[in-house]
Amino acid sequence: MTEAPSLYGPVAEDIPAVGNVLAGLSEGHHPLLGATLAHIFETGGKRIRPALVLLSGKLGTYQRDRLVTLAASLEVVHTATLVHDDTIDQALTRRGLQTINALWDGKVAILVGDFLLAQSAELASRLDSVRIMSLLSQTVMDMSSGELRQYAASQSHTLDEADYFARIGGKTASLFAMCCEGAGVLSDQSEECIGALRSYGTNLGLAFQIADDVLDFVGDEQSLGKPAGNDLRQGTITLPVIMVAQALSGDSALRHDIERGRNTDGILEAVRASGALDRALDRAREYARTARKDLCIFPASQAKEVLLELTQQVIDRRR
Amino acid sequence: MTEAPSLYGPVAEDIPAVGNVLAGLSEGHHPLLGATLAHIFETGGKRIRPALVLLSGKLGTYQRDRLVTLAASLEVVHTATLVHDDTIDQALTRRGLQTINALWDGKVAILVGDFLLAQSAELASRLDSVRIMSLLSQTVMDMSSGELRQYAASQSHTLDEADYFARIGGKTASLFAMCCEGAGVLSDQSEECIGALRSYGTNLGLAFQIADDVLDFVGDEQSLGKPAGNDLRQGTITLPVIMVAQALSGDSALRHDIERGRNTDGILEAVRASGALDRALDRAREYARTARKDLCIFPASQAKEVLLELTQQVIDRRR
Repeated sequence: MTEAPSLYGPVAEDIPAVGNVLAGLSEGHHPLLGATLAHIFETGGKRIRPALVLLSGKLGTYQRDRLVTLAASLEVVHTATLVHDDTIDQALTRRGLQTINALWDGKVAILVGDFLLAQSAELASRLDSVRIMSLLSQTVMDMSSGELRQYAASQSHTLDEADYFARIGGKTASLFAMCCEGAGVLSDQSEECIGALRSYGTNLGLAFQIADDVLDFVGDEQSLGKPAGNDLRQGTITLPVIMVAQALSGDSALRHDIERGRNTDGILEAVRASGALDRALDRAREYARTARKDLCIFPASQAKEVLLELTQQVIDRRR
Repeated sequence: MTEAPSLYGPVAEDIPAVGNVLAGLSEGHHPLLGATLAHIFETGGKRIRPALVLLSGKLGTYQRDRLVTLAASLEVVHTATLVHDDTIDQALTRRGLQTINALWDGKVAILVGDFLLAQSAELASRLDSVRIMSLLSQTVMDMSSGELRQYAASQSHTLDEADYFARIGGKTASLFAMCCEGAGVLSDQSEECIGALRSYGTNLGLAFQIADDVLDFVGDEQSLGKPAGNDLRQGTITLPVIMVAQALSGDSALRHDIERGRNTDGILEAVRASGALDRALDRAREYARTARKDLCIFPASQAKEVLLELTQQVIDRRR
């Protein structure tokens, strides 16, 4: 995955405009709120969600200002969930910066996250489209519902593959889908095209999250910003572990370890040795392929080219 | 304050419909999410916010189903903030029931609160009004911003009266205002009437919160559901304390105690002995009077009568 928005092709020059909207959000508030927002929007991140909005909009009638507003709204949603996730996980750093819960505390982080959720809706309301507002609220419901599903899974150590896909569909793919679908709506595309964009976003999001989950096993602390095996240590069982467990008999010692959330190092080693990481990436590649097929109905264009490339990049990324 | 919605006069019969919408929200989810939502909506509460929506709507063209949907949406917002507030305060009970953070944990409570914030927006989006969606997002921004201001005040032990009114305006009055204003919009009232309703809601909300803050000094644990002086113990300095401090010289021992957040029992006793509780209630009565004046432009009606009575009830309440 690229850090440099310049790789986002025909929309690269409009990505900074999204950052400008975000930077402006920290102004005019009580000092505490202003300081937290300024801190949050200090780093840019990869901006993949804004890029998806702008690129999808390029496939229709590109209305720059409206698409930038939607992109900012959805980046704020993403940011809100990061602030709350870091609070839940008691994470101390994110993208090399201290988290809100570390720099202030969990109370401030809860309230700032709430403010950001409302701020994202306020930005979206500027677009004067009930359809967008409705999509946005449904997306945030899906995201928090997916996170709750993940929490429940970490408590029960469930090895159910369908449950894994339901939770990554909610926590990650739903926002990717919203980025693409919302941009389709705002760029006056046909319902068929909007549906194709939604499907593309969902499949890209699933591929992205599977690759992210694999990365947790192979990355090093330097590039991940957290120690390898962090998910497992947090009790989050992801696709590679599920795949390993599927090949084990019910009474194997390793399966018992997985189901009881113990012997993390042993499980990590077994996953790495099993070939499950490659098989999980194969599943990610399948979703990436489906995402590419979703774009068939669009004529060739620079923006389409970048959207196609993204399906590859989300799998090849190293952090 | 009444517990019995039957006192809400001409809209009493429609209040249960709001409860029915809320009860329906817990269906069709992952078991963990369904269980938390069912628990949250098990008790009714006073339903003052739904009553404000319906009564304000009665002053215009009463569209029952749309007003019930708005009432449900705003009760969900209120509920979301309670869930997050209880998490922040680590409160174990609310309205005699265990809190989400007590029954599950703070992680679940953060996510369920997020879900509820999105659910309130989803309900509001059914009304097909961007104006309502925009008001709602601004209201939630004001609420979380007010809570952050309260947090900052509790850290700095500020005795600034303007800051007190800014935070209760945000955390409480903004939602009261939204209830009345939103109902005005949905019942096709003139902009003058909508503005009057907004002002009524703001003033009622300020009176309500001042009375609530006074109650924290005089109530007993039985009726409050928490020990008296709870605000002060949490570091929250409210109007009675500010009024006592204003009468103290800068170098008085009590003022130093207040500014350093110590000697809670001594401060409680001083507040009770000082007459500041009566003076604070006088301020609440002023806001109640202004709220009544806001309703002057409406012709006499049963609904108006109840709205007028509410300005008295929020001050006379015992819990």
